[in-house]
Amino acid sequence: MENGAKRWGFQGKQGLDAASATNVRGYFNLLMGNINQDNSSVVVPLGHGDPSHFPSFRTTPAAEDAIVDALRSAKHNCYATTVDYLNRDLSYKLTPDDVYLTIGCNQAIEVVTAVLSRPGANIFLPRPGYPHYEPWCAYNHLEMRHYDLLPEKGLEVDVDAVETLADENTAAMVIINPGNPCWNVCSYEHLNKIAETARKLGILVIADEAYDNIAFGSTPYVPMRVFGLTVPILTLGSISKRWVVPGWRFGWLVTSDPDGILQKSGVINSIAGFLNISSDPATFIQAAIPQILENTKEDFFSKIISTLRECADICYNRIEEIPSLTCPKKPEGSMFVMVKLNLSMLEDINDDVDFCLKLAKEESVIILPGIAMELKNWLRVTFAIEPSLLQEGLARVKAFCQRHAKKQ
Amino acid sequence: MENGAKRWGFQGKQGLDAASATNVRGYFNLLMGNINQDNSSVVVPLGHGDPSHFPSFRTTPAAEDAIVDALRSAKHNCYATTVDYLNRDLSYKLTPDDVYLTIGCNQAIEVVTAVLSRPGANIFLPRPGYPHYEPWCAYNHLEMRHYDLLPEKGLEVDVDAVETLADENTAAMVIINPGNPCWNVCSYEHLNKIAETARKLGILVIADEAYDNIAFGSTPYVPMRVFGLTVPILTLGSISKRWVVPGWRFGWLVTSDPDGILQKSGVINSIAGFLNISSDPATFIQAAIPQILENTKEDFFSKIISTLRECADICYNRIEEIPSLTCPKKPEGSMFVMVKLNLSMLEDINDDVDFCLKLAKEESVIILPGIAMELKNWLRVTFAIEPSLLQEGLARVKAFCQRHAKKQ
Ligand SMILES: Cc1ncc(COP(=O)(O)O)c(C=O)c1O
Ligand SMILES: Cc1ncc(COP(=O)(O)O)c(C=O)c1O
Repeated sequence: MENGAKRWGFQGKQGLDAASATNVRGYFNLLMGNINQDNSSVVVPLGHGDPSHFPSFRTTPAAEDAIVDALRSAKHNCYATTVDYLNRDLSYKLTPDDVYLTIGCNQAIEVVTAVLSRPGANIFLPRPGYPHYEPWCAYNHLEMRHYDLLPEKGLEVDVDAVETLADENTAAMVIINPGNPCWNVCSYEHLNKIAETARKLGILVIADEAYDNIAFGSTPYVPMRVFGLTVPILTLGSISKRWVVPGWRFGWLVTSDPDGILQKSGVINSIAGFLNISSDPATFIQAAIPQILENTKEDFFSKIISTLRECADICYNRIEEIPSLTCPKKPEGSMFVMVKLNLSMLEDINDDVDFCLKLAKEESVIILPGIAMELKNWLRVTFAIEPSLLQEGLARVKAFCQRHAKKQ
Repeated sequence: MENGAKRWGFQGKQGLDAASATNVRGYFNLLMGNINQDNSSVVVPLGHGDPSHFPSFRTTPAAEDAIVDALRSAKHNCYATTVDYLNRDLSYKLTPDDVYLTIGCNQAIEVVTAVLSRPGANIFLPRPGYPHYEPWCAYNHLEMRHYDLLPEKGLEVDVDAVETLADENTAAMVIINPGNPCWNVCSYEHLNKIAETARKLGILVIADEAYDNIAFGSTPYVPMRVFGLTVPILTLGSISKRWVVPGWRFGWLVTSDPDGILQKSGVINSIAGFLNISSDPATFIQAAIPQILENTKEDFFSKIISTLRECADICYNRIEEIPSLTCPKKPEGSMFVMVKLNLSMLEDINDDVDFCLKLAKEESVIILPGIAMELKNWLRVTFAIEPSLLQEGLARVKAFCQRHAKKQ
């Protein structure tokens, strides 16, 4: 019996690799591989939003202390405090039964796509959006219908256009607010209109609030769940962004269901069933959450917000100086902007992927091509890095664009 | 538009709740709900294997220190050390590319069932087994074929019987060694026979080694992956049991594929693709792993093993004294035994579930009914609790059985 000849009865599931090839991590690995190792200048990571390694974004010592205390002693009363945190500003009340703890917001995305999948069901996703939804929808055979959030059209949800996408198999609509990669913050009125529309269509709203409270423009952040009396809402959130600890993997899935609609439709049961067989966050991280929520000072949040405002200004102003790039609107929230590539002003650049690959090679700057979020010939730039490094990185982008500019 | 009348376009996925209702957590919640709150005696948890709260089973300070150090400093060189740990005793060499870090062994189970699922595929599972496989196989539409590991028949894999289960759609065979809930430790010869059979059938071996090195009888523990040159092997493991830290949620999936068979069949690609969209263990836990593996003294392991041996003896001897219960073989590994219920010697006990519900109510002792592992009228008892509490709990089980004994 020879190895070459042997027939083995297993094979890898098709589509699993394909599903993930187009996601951010895939592009990120591609770009990192294109960095010129002979180039001695430091790599500037404008590609993904993890500022946790930079001094200006270091989390509060109160959060680290809470983990150490929990590890050494392990008391568990996590749910109650999390509910208090989530209950602020609501006209109905959440209870611990409404809160499911997850391994970051990402696991909550896995849960909602698994729970809503049934033959023929479809779901609305924003485009550009957060490219973690697509592979999970594909994996769970949930048909995706994208609605556009065009940067040059004000970045709000085009509610009328959304209505035309709906049919009787539409289960839900995903809203990312504050937006990623579109950096708008939805007003109370706009969220209300979304809630009314969802109610009319009979679909639930999945409110991805990974960036909750990361708002530094004129519009205050409002959690979608204040409209829980209008329409059933699943809120996805985490400590990753607000506490700048994406590596800690702690988040939540919250059901706003004061009228018992999710309960009746079996959604609550499926969420509980799925999480029953899924992994939990590490217990000592869970145990640390009450102390983290209670001991974090307002100071910490306002320092992070003002650093992000400074970074957003740098980013917007530097990009304004580059003729071949356009940033349609000043950032108001989250950690990203989408920047339009004016290819006609550039020589020897074919598209966004080509731009990013050459930029990585020539300047050691990592920027994500828009195609990763289905917005071809745009770029996704994070401004959430140390301000001095952001200046340096954008200066290199400028030099790159000048070098590749079409001669007039 | 009224709530009652409104037609909502979503519903929970059917089967998700059903899939998890029969699992251990479900029975566990049922039994805990049956505890008599007026009974002032302490609850004795013989139902699930998490000894981490008991003084005799406290993890080594070296492990806690490693987490604190990682949290405060965060260096990341996790893969290399994990590979050294896994490479011991192998006649081929694993590389960091063969090791995938997971959120405990449980996430590795999720990954392998997702990866191997394709229309028509089937997989062999031990019965009784670890009831986390069944809901994930069901969820991934992977047909389950159970092979029996009968406690009264020596607990080894009946390799000939396994052969008759196979057809050309069989993808893999799961082996749990050291066993849970069957407490045997497979000999080198027995594992070799399993490897040869799997090779003959053209199926891969999934070696669940959650209890690696938890062997305290006469048979030494041998990792399945020493047979990697015979057959492709996926090893699932974690620090949960050996370090007594199930809440830390850190494990691994290791591909033993020296002949490139898993690579060619696309299994490696699918594993990487699935983990690419899945959640990771918390980064500071990952970062702590090298220090945990390096700094844990042999002392710690041998103290835990001798405590488990002491507990296993107590458990076996106490159960021997109870006429209506039979433990077919002295425990040699893991943290559980299956105990046979002689219903004919008991009055007013209908079956294993009835036994466990009444025991919880009358004696505040939690034992899992065998039906949770598809072995009706058996009981699954963990002996991995503080020895004094184990004595107390088994004394109560004895009193319970005497009270319910049939009058001669
Ligand atoms: C819109 C959005 N949702 C969810 C997540 C995932 O967050 P977490 O780190 O909590 O898993 C991110 C992370 O970047 C995000 O941008
Ligand atoms: C046989 C078996 N496999 C896997 C696991 C899961 O272990 P982990 O805590 O690493 O997820 C367990 C836990 O009890 C087990 O008994």
